[in-house]
Amino acid sequence: MSQAPVLASESPPSDFARWWAVRRRTHHCTVRRVPFAELDEWRFDAATGNLGHRSGRFFTVCGARAGGDVQPIIDQPEIGVLGILVKRIGGVPHCLLQAKAEPGNVNIVQLSPTVQATRSNYTRVHSGAPVRYLDYFTQPDRVLVDTLQSEHGAWFHRKRNRNMVVLTDEDVPPHEDFHWVPLRSVGALLTVPNLVNMDARTVLACLLGRHATGADPALLSWFTEARARHDRTAVLVGLNTVPGWQRTATELRREDGTGFRVLAVSVTAPNREATAWTQPLLAPRSPGVVAFLARTTPAGRTQLLVRARPELGCRDAAELGPTVQTGTGQDEPLLATTLALATDPTRIRYDTVLSEEGGRLWHAESRYLVLDAGDTVPEPGPDFRWTDLAALTGLLRHSYYLNVQARSLLAAVLTDRMST
Amino acid sequence: MSQAPVLASESPPSDFARWWAVRRRTHHCTVRRVPFAELDEWRFDAATGNLGHRSGRFFTVCGARAGGDVQPIIDQPEIGVLGILVKRIGGVPHCLLQAKAEPGNVNIVQLSPTVQATRSNYTRVHSGAPVRYLDYFTQPDRVLVDTLQSEHGAWFHRKRNRNMVVLTDEDVPPHEDFHWVPLRSVGALLTVPNLVNMDARTVLACLLGRHATGADPALLSWFTEARARHDRTAVLVGLNTVPGWQRTATELRREDGTGFRVLAVSVTAPNREATAWTQPLLAPRSPGVVAFLARTTPAGRTQLLVRARPELGCRDAAELGPTVQTGTGQDEPLLATTLALATDPTRIRYDTVLSEEGGRLWHAESRYLVLDAGDTVPEPGPDFRWTDLAALTGLLRHSYYLNVQARSLLAAVLTDRMST
Repeated sequence: MSQAPVLASESPPSDFARWWAVRRRTHHCTVRRVPFAELDEWRFDAATGNLGHRSGRFFTVCGARAGGDVQPIIDQPEIGVLGILVKRIGGVPHCLLQAKAEPGNVNIVQLSPTVQATRSNYTRVHSGAPVRYLDYFTQPDRVLVDTLQSEHGAWFHRKRNRNMVVLTDEDVPPHEDFHWVPLRSVGALLTVPNLVNMDARTVLACLLGRHATGADPALLSWFTEARARHDRTAVLVGLNTVPGWQRTATELRREDGTGFRVLAVSVTAPNREATAWTQPLLAPRSPGVVAFLARTTPAGRTQLLVRARPELGCRDAAELGPTVQTGTGQDEPLLATTLALATDPTRIRYDTVLSEEGGRLWHAESRYLVLDAGDTVPEPGPDFRWTDLAALTGLLRHSYYLNVQARSLLAAVLTDRMST
Repeated sequence: MSQAPVLASESPPSDFARWWAVRRRTHHCTVRRVPFAELDEWRFDAATGNLGHRSGRFFTVCGARAGGDVQPIIDQPEIGVLGILVKRIGGVPHCLLQAKAEPGNVNIVQLSPTVQATRSNYTRVHSGAPVRYLDYFTQPDRVLVDTLQSEHGAWFHRKRNRNMVVLTDEDVPPHEDFHWVPLRSVGALLTVPNLVNMDARTVLACLLGRHATGADPALLSWFTEARARHDRTAVLVGLNTVPGWQRTATELRREDGTGFRVLAVSVTAPNREATAWTQPLLAPRSPGVVAFLARTTPAGRTQLLVRARPELGCRDAAELGPTVQTGTGQDEPLLATTLALATDPTRIRYDTVLSEEGGRLWHAESRYLVLDAGDTVPEPGPDFRWTDLAALTGLLRHSYYLNVQARSLLAAVLTDRMST
């Protein structure tokens, strides 16, 4: 990694900045919280208490139980497509990125993949406009990335999306909401707070890590053991069987005031597929801290301190996450160490506030950090492991190894390496 | 692959044959079918109809539903260990294999991994003897293989086990039920009908394929698309909500007489952890046909015709299976072609009757075939793909790519290549 944060060395290209300023103004989306009773097509099922859409599609807020742990969770069984179209322009790889409004984003509009569509979107359940550029992903030319990757296991039940990158030689004129961004500028964009959305970050991580090869048998064995040790089976249950939670007119929340909430919003968005709608959102406790501690071995290899993180919604017991990841229900033994390291500017390799998915999550911001820990931090327990960056990126082409927070941070680390 | 079946070129070593003959006689296990009413610790739950153990452990026969498909299924959420201990003896790698009796095996005793233990086994829920050599796997020296792999998705709900191979330098005297088998003899053993059990085969496949590297992006993309296309979510339901099935005094079976059955057995086995017990078993329609069609490219690469196989119990929608796999609920468009090819001895690369897991399955035998198809067979649909053997073996270190039938066949193919 370079010694200075990327932001200092590079800034977004000016044609991007001009386009972006216009798009932000254009997408004057209005979002306001409303009581549950004002939800249009959504309702609490009388028998189960689950909050679902009248069509039975999109997603459902229900309960999940594993042993003694019970909590509300979002069930969205559909596999969506998160796809970035790549093309060489003047010999230089460019990504087609989109200015997209999502109701849960603090700033409404963020930079998203070329295609970010649930199956409901592209089969047009809600009668919206067709998804632009979708054909490039359903009938791809040359596929660089195509893998199922998870979303937050603390909030979603086994949710995953198809992360795709497709290379094209065709002439692709960008619609006004889309812009060809040089791949080498992505690192700079990732240092702008709440600009590159979560879906773009996970796809970019897969793209940037795709050349890594091999799998470290010792790493895989450690992780397999962790999965076996943490294994438990979560099943969906009715929301009204989840103890310790209460529903008010405007919120579903824990009686003790901790944890996330579920709330409802009303949205008016001229440039979305549907121009006005209401929907529920899950509101995590914010802002979170998501951090990798990093070090360099005597041989010059970058290592990150990963943690095997069991979460109720994991498809297979646990995934590899960052060193610290607050607000998702685990104790964080290295939080204090991390925050202390973050006070020393010479240790900061990356430090940006980023948003989680704004289509399902309300104002979910976290401070994303990569910090040089030097030789100061040993592994604090069996779920932690100092791991070669190359070994981690080699796992990005396979499903359910790296959680979405870890993939976000890897996107930053890998673009940083690319630019230096 | 060699031009002649392995059996002709090599036979099991004679010290193995002597040991094996004694072990087969020693394990004079008696298994007889009994009515459900004679099950000791097992009973049908009054509310759900599920057939489970009094302790709530081991496994449960319940229902699984995905959309309109409903069927009985075995739910065994525990992750067991299937482990083979490897040691160089006289410079030659040897595997410590076990003569193990299982009630569902047609011949009772088969050759199993060093350790084949469910969590209930090794936490000794049924008060049996401790699991021999388990410490080598819980505190491993040098791990060669350690990955979660599935079992039959047609019969088990998301079941998987930890496939492990551990290398040791210690002096390990074999208990009388165990034998050090040279790794290079495994190919010959795999040509003996119903000798090497399913658990040994899957671990051997992972061992023999572990040096393969890389992952073919086009293969992964094809498989991701197939998973997305076949995706559906199976949930467990009460057995008494499964329509079209009837329970007699001795069997749970489909009213139309097709498909598998569930039955009960009484076992007396002096050398098992527990010396006498009763248990349910699932009886697939037998014998099945499990086959890979193979071909060699002009450049000399071996390719196998794989099929993406969605099964109700898959942890992630589908896995890669053989070209043909009868008795597990799918149409098999290449069955007739396969059986026709199998009449030509010059096309047969492997042809052995093997058993599926005898601890849960009753008399589940299949004819396992690898056949040289030459240039005669195109891909008959989007779920089929001619795939480089090297690309397939590269997936063995990761979970849930290759189903257990495909892994069995790969063990045979890879030992064949090793010996030639």
